[in-house]
Amino acid sequence: MAPKQFHSEDIAQLEQRFRTNLINSCGGFRQPMLVGTIDEACQTNLALFTSIFHVGAHPPMLGMVVRPDSVARHTLENIRNTRCYTLNTVNKDIYQQAHQTSARYPKEVSEFDATGLTPKYNTNFLAPFVLESPLKLGMKLIQTIPLVVNGTILVIGEIMYLECEETLLDADGYIHHEATETIAVAGLDAYYTTELINRLPYAKP
Amino acid sequence: MAPKQFHSEDIAQLEQRFRTNLINSCGGFRQPMLVGTIDEACQTNLALFTSIFHVGAHPPMLGMVVRPDSVARHTLENIRNTRCYTLNTVNKDIYQQAHQTSARYPKEVSEFDATGLTPKYNTNFLAPFVLESPLKLGMKLIQTIPLVVNGTILVIGEIMYLECEETLLDADGYIHHEATETIAVAGLDAYYTTELINRLPYAKP
Repeated sequence: MAPKQFHSEDIAQLEQRFRTNLINSCGGFRQPMLVGTIDEACQTNLALFTSIFHVGAHPPMLGMVVRPDSVARHTLENIRNTRCYTLNTVNKDIYQQAHQTSARYPKEVSEFDATGLTPKYNTNFLAPFVLESPLKLGMKLIQTIPLVVNGTILVIGEIMYLECEETLLDADGYIHHEATETIAVAGLDAYYTTELINRLPYAKP
Repeated sequence: MAPKQFHSEDIAQLEQRFRTNLINSCGGFRQPMLVGTIDEACQTNLALFTSIFHVGAHPPMLGMVVRPDSVARHTLENIRNTRCYTLNTVNKDIYQQAHQTSARYPKEVSEFDATGLTPKYNTNFLAPFVLESPLKLGMKLIQTIPLVVNGTILVIGEIMYLECEETLLDADGYIHHEATETIAVAGLDAYYTTELINRLPYAKP
C-alpha cells in the first residue's frame, strides 16, 4: 500500500481539526503529567501537560511547553509567581479525571475539586501534589524561554523532590512506570497502557 | 508500603549510575526517533533521540534536546550546516538497530551502514530518511537555543514533510502508532509496546 504523504503546503491547507490531530499525534507517545500549582491566595490549579521532556540528569531538570493563551495560562502565572510546581504521573485509575482537568474551568474553580483528585502537601513545598499519582516530582522554576516563532513558553525546572511507590523502583534506579499501570498518551486524547519488551545493554560499536 | 522519597540533596549524593537511571526514567514514556542527517561531504549520520516534544501545530513544529558534548554532536553539526534533518519512528522490528545507533562510532562510519538500516532519499530534501520507519518527518531548522544551565541545546524545527503507512492514519487525522507496533521508551534503555485504552472526548466543565 502506498504511504500517505503530506508536504508543507498540503499540511497548511488541511482542515483545521484534521491538521491538529495529525501534527499533535505525529510526535508519538508521551508521558501525561498533572501539573499542580497554587497562587498567592492559596487557590490551587491542576492541569494536564503532555509536552514534558528530559533536559539533563545533573542537575536533574525537565522542561515543558506552555501556551500562554490556552487553558494553561493559570498554571504559567502560578509558576512565575511562586517559582514552584509539581509533576504527577497518571495511571489507569485516574486517566479520565486527568483528562477532565483540560476543561476550561474559571480561575476560582480548582481542578482538584472539579475532578475529585486529592491535593497532598509536603512540608516546605508550596505547590500541591496529586495523592493518587504513583510518581510525584517537586519542581523549582529555573528559566522560562519565550519562543518567538509561535508565542509558546518553554519552562525549565529542577527536580527538588521525587517520590514514587516502592514497587516502581528497580535496584539500579530505573522507575518501572508500567508496574502501576502508568499510562502513555499520543495526540490530544488517546491513552495507552504499555508492556515492557526489553531493557537493552549500553550500545558499543 | 511507604513511598520512596528523594530530596534534592539525596539526589545529588546518589551513586552516579543510579542517579542517571532515576532521573532519566522519572519523566516517563517517550517516543524514540531516529534523527537522520548528512554533512557537506555526503556522509550520513543516524542517531536515536528520546527528548522530542510537540511545540505547536500551526506552524507544525517539534523540538528536541541535544547534548553537544555527547555522541549526538555530529547530528548537531550536520543540522546547523545543512539546516535540515529527518525524524523517523521506531517499531518493534527495528528497535534493536535503533538502540545500536547510540554507540560511539567515529564520524566516518555511518550508523546506517553499522546497523543495517536503509537510507531513503526524497527529491529536494538533503537529509536521509529511514526506509524501515513507519512514520517519517522532514524537518527544517528554525532555531537553536542554548540552555546556559547545563550546556544543552534545544533544537526547534518545522515539519516540512510527513509520510506514514496508510494503515496508521485515522479519518480524523490521528496517527495510530500502535497499528505498526511503534514502540515507546522510558529511561535510557527500556522499550515498550503499547495498547490503546481509549480516545476521550474534548473535555468540558
